[in-house]
Amino acid sequence: MDIASLLGIASGIFLIVGAIFLGGDIHNFINIPGLMIVGGGSLATTLLTFQFRDVFAAFKAAYFVFSKEKEDPNEAVAIMISLCQISRRQGLLELSKIETDSGFLKKACGLIADGSSNDVIRNALITEIESLKMRHFIVQDVFRKMGIYSPAFGMLGTLIGLVQMLSNLQEPSQIGPAMATALLTTFYGSLMSTMFFLPIAGKLKARTILEVINLEIMLEGSISILDNNNPVILYEKLSSFISARLRKPMKEMVGR
Amino acid sequence: MDIASLLGIASGIFLIVGAIFLGGDIHNFINIPGLMIVGGGSLATTLLTFQFRDVFAAFKAAYFVFSKEKEDPNEAVAIMISLCQISRRQGLLELSKIETDSGFLKKACGLIADGSSNDVIRNALITEIESLKMRHFIVQDVFRKMGIYSPAFGMLGTLIGLVQMLSNLQEPSQIGPAMATALLTTFYGSLMSTMFFLPIAGKLKARTILEVINLEIMLEGSISILDNNNPVILYEKLSSFISARLRKPMKEMVGR
Amino acid sequence: MDIASLLGIASGIFLIVGAIFLGGDIHNFINIPGLMIVGGGSLATTLLTFQFRDVFAAFKAAYFVFSKEKEDPNEAVAIMISLCQISRRQGLLELSKIETDSGFLKKACGLIADGSSNDVIRNALITEIESLKMRHFIVQDVFRKMGIYSPAFGMLGTLIGLVQMLSNLQEPSQIGPAMATALLTTFYGSLMSTMFFLPIAGKLKARTILEVINLEIMLEGSISILDNNNPVILYEKLSSFISARLRKPMKEMVGR
Amino acid sequence: MDIASLLGIASGIFLIVGAIFLGGDIHNFINIPGLMIVGGGSLATTLLTFQFRDVFAAFKAAYFVFSKEKEDPNEAVAIMISLCQISRRQGLLELSKIETDSGFLKKACGLIADGSSNDVIRNALITEIESLKMRHFIVQDVFRKMGIYSPAFGMLGTLIGLVQMLSNLQEPSQIGPAMATALLTTFYGSLMSTMFFLPIAGKLKARTILEVINLEIMLEGSISILDNNNPVILYEKLSSFISARLRKPMKEMVGR
Amino acid sequence: MDIASLLGIASGIFLIVGAIFLGGDIHNFINIPGLMIVGGGSLATTLLTFQFRDVFAAFKAAYFVFSKEKEDPNEAVAIMISLCQISRRQGLLELSKIETDSGFLKKACGLIADGSSNDVIRNALITEIESLKMRHFIVQDVFRKMGIYSPAFGMLGTLIGLVQMLSNLQEPSQIGPAMATALLTTFYGSLMSTMFFLPIAGKLKARTILEVINLEIMLEGSISILDNNNPVILYEKLSSFISARLRKPMKEMVGR
Repeated sequence: MDIASLLGIASGIFLIVGAIFLGGDIHNFINIPGLMIVGGGSLATTLLTFQFRDVFAAFKAAYFVFSKEKEDPNEAVAIMISLCQISRRQGLLELSKIETDSGFLKKACGLIADGSSNDVIRNALITEIESLKMRHFIVQDVFRKMGIYSPAFGMLGTLIGLVQMLSNLQEPSQIGPAMATALLTTFYGSLMSTMFFLPIAGKLKARTILEVINLEIMLEGSISILDNNNPVILYEKLSSFISARLRKPMKEMVGR
Repeated sequence: MDIASLLGIASGIFLIVGAIFLGGDIHNFINIPGLMIVGGGSLATTLLTFQFRDVFAAFKAAYFVFSKEKEDPNEAVAIMISLCQISRRQGLLELSKIETDSGFLKKACGLIADGSSNDVIRNALITEIESLKMRHFIVQDVFRKMGIYSPAFGMLGTLIGLVQMLSNLQEPSQIGPAMATALLTTFYGSLMSTMFFLPIAGKLKARTILEVINLEIMLEGSISILDNNNPVILYEKLSSFISARLRKPMKEMVGR
Repeated sequence: MDIASLLGIASGIFLIVGAIFLGGDIHNFINIPGLMIVGGGSLATTLLTFQFRDVFAAFKAAYFVFSKEKEDPNEAVAIMISLCQISRRQGLLELSKIETDSGFLKKACGLIADGSSNDVIRNALITEIESLKMRHFIVQDVFRKMGIYSPAFGMLGTLIGLVQMLSNLQEPSQIGPAMATALLTTFYGSLMSTMFFLPIAGKLKARTILEVINLEIMLEGSISILDNNNPVILYEKLSSFISARLRKPMKEMVGR
Repeated sequence: MDIASLLGIASGIFLIVGAIFLGGDIHNFINIPGLMIVGGGSLATTLLTFQFRDVFAAFKAAYFVFSKEKEDPNEAVAIMISLCQISRRQGLLELSKIETDSGFLKKACGLIADGSSNDVIRNALITEIESLKMRHFIVQDVFRKMGIYSPAFGMLGTLIGLVQMLSNLQEPSQIGPAMATALLTTFYGSLMSTMFFLPIAGKLKARTILEVINLEIMLEGSISILDNNNPVILYEKLSSFISARLRKPMKEMVGR
Repeated sequence: MDIASLLGIASGIFLIVGAIFLGGDIHNFINIPGLMIVGGGSLATTLLTFQFRDVFAAFKAAYFVFSKEKEDPNEAVAIMISLCQISRRQGLLELSKIETDSGFLKKACGLIADGSSNDVIRNALITEIESLKMRHFIVQDVFRKMGIYSPAFGMLGTLIGLVQMLSNLQEPSQIGPAMATALLTTFYGSLMSTMFFLPIAGKLKARTILEVINLEIMLEGSISILDNNNPVILYEKLSSFISARLRKPMKEMVGR
């Protein structure tokens, strides 16, 4: 579990709930129809905007991004160096037998082993990266759109409440509580957008950037294995993708 | 009919109407002049911004996007593989006899059969894709602009109502209902924008992305048929456009 | 005269004026100093932002876009095909005698007849297209900026009115009408922006896109005439710029 | 002095001041602490965002853009044609003796006279243009940021005024004037942003576009002098940068 | 310490605090729970959006950007010229012994000394620059997002305060102070965003631009050393990156 995210969600909720408790009765902040308009309306409009499959994929991605460890680019560099060494000792054909979870790396190895040309490999892998980016963009977009729709439904709920209140002004003592209830949907909408949807969209975007770097390391590594197959040059090229501060020396990677 | 969209629209309307019913009389929310200002004004300004033909095309596209099934990229890959096999067995000239609904594929086949060069085919097909993208962009833009114009007309309606109310403050008992009526146009404008225009614009954009992927598969497939005409390499290249999870194995495609 | 635009403006004005009439006295909506702040202020700030010549050009372009018929890309394709046929029968030199309203086409013909190389022609014509795009962008930008400045001046006018009203609260009966007057400038600013400036900017942008397509057809056609001078290939290449649904068959174009 | 700008500023100020005078006492609109919060705060935040040197350069650029005449691209074309003629008659070496105010043209001439290759000249001059664009972008950005910061400080000032007023509601007769004073900072912030900072940023951007066109004419002209040194082709290439309507015929340029 | 930034922060705080003091009691502006909602909420949501490491890196970068002197591009040009002279006199191998703080320059020198080809060096160094840009973008994004989140939490705090106040309207004398307190969080959120987060994000962006220019000077310089190794051409190429006004003549650089 991502520790910063857990801390972020927990402290955010704590601060908001704390502020409500300090000011008085928390029941004033619970309004089931309001929650349904904002939550349900945002979800309904999101279903209208996207395909069912994309919305489902987005929620799954949001779950994984908080539960799964992110991959270290040093790891990807180390894998490419060991592939380089295998192919030097045992020939490029050996790469077709590599066992890996990554479909991308498997495809790269298969293409090298099949004797595909430099250009074919580069084009196929770039297409893979581009279509992954596009799919991830849609997943992020689901949350970004929810972050736009939820305050809009909050405002719609408040407008409904205001119109109802203003149409029946007979009891002035009811104006205050009625307005409080009307404002609640705006509160719900902003809270959902600011504390959940927008940060999750941001997190998914950041994770995509990291994943794409790993894939680019594998792409450049594969081309390099095909071209000259020298572990030192490979390391020099691939390590450029990693911040100098986080970069591991080659020795650590080869020694494995 | 797109099931997610149907669900989205139905539940969205249900939630809003339900919230109105819960709070009291639904007649307070019906105001014909207000609806005319917002709906009519948005449509009028959209006609001023675009050509009549574009607005008409946009509404037609919105109808199709909800009624027509979207095409599966696996289908496009399978078609290109079978074209590849036909042209291997019977020669490239045979492609000119292909029957297809897609004008794009027909043009591609015609250009290959005519013996056009790699560059001519690529340029003509890229121009087709670019001009399709541009036409679709205009269609999306019609709804995006309606999503901007409708809240603006909602606010204009509210301003008209407020000015009229403030100019005649003689009867204080009328202030509440008058303000309620004035707020209704803001409600209409936001509702139309959030629940219809913006989601439809989003859906059209998503559908364009899918369609362009299909065309790119056909483009790359056509070039590949001309270049080396090998179904295995073709499959390897074209399958990169599809998410690994949805990708069908080559056997399923060839066996048909 | 563009029929959709006329319809758009007429129905938009009708709806707004109708809503004002329904609600009461139209005199409440007329405030000369308010109109001067919003209209004059927007114009003054636009003059400060742009050159006098650009603002003048923008208003002229807005007039033409509504009065002049837009050009049909099929027409441009037909012209290029007939130029292709002339140059085949009578030689490339004959192109220098072509009579045309389009300075762009004249330049293209002149360069071909002068025996300029493929690259020189492409570069000169691309520079022409780029500088046309840039000039049109400035013209659109004049209206886009007016669409931003006018609501800003509307708000400034309202602030002036509010400050004046709040500074003199002695007569409570005057508060309502004073606030109504203050709100009028916001109404003027939003109305001008939503009903005139932004739609005109949008229309000018759409018209630029159409014009650039026509120029690109001429550019690609000129290069093609120089390269291989085959009307069938020319048609195949240029028709890709036109939507399949609107595309005219080659026979119609050649038969003229 | 730029006549349109002068007219714009004068009429804008006249309209605003006139509207204030019409409505009553102008003293209600003067509030020194408010002016200090908005003006001082915007400037302070701008200093925090940029370097001292950039802010200083921005104010200097704003002064020059209104006082200095802009350069005519026809002038740049004429200069390049005369350089072309000099280098044809007296050799490329002669270009090193050209006297000019423009450091860019001096560098171009120096590189040609030094016998640098086509690529070296193009790269050095493109780097010059790119770094000029970037410096100008920062200068525009100073005013764009001031146009964002000033309404933000206006709102901060109003919030301060509202909090102070609401904390001391004992004297109801003071509520009106106190709110009027609070609103003044919002008025100042919007006025500065709309009437000064944003238009100046726009003007600087427009001036940069013009200047870059002049530099691109010099760049293309220099390359052309090196390549074939033909004044007619040179004119044909360079005149594409100028709108057909403003373009001067070659005769006028050569005859000088 | 960056003098403009210090001046900016000091004068900004002075103006705001001064305005509060002038208007009365400063205690009205201190509300610990409000500060916690806005400050804590923004930080919590930022932790949810980014990785812990990125947030930490951002605060460190913000500290350095105000304390560390920025590097002068003339310095980078001078270094490249001296490297050019060393490699001419003592051979390219000598470059591997260069002592420098810059990991980028060290890598460039190492690659040259290793006899890597032009393309390998260019690609490795461009990858370094791109990944530095991306890391810096994330760092800027942390502050940009805080500049978005903090006013959002300000509004959430105000909504909480308003709902609490409106739910308990029994004591009308409490309405004013309660609203004042509710508005305070909006004030905090806007103040933090306008005076700290957005300017810091802007400053970091400006610093990144400067740093990238230095790296591009080193990149172009390294390629140039490998290609022809002529200090005069090197100076001519690299000085284009510097504004003509700030550019130092070559003599000053070589003489060292």
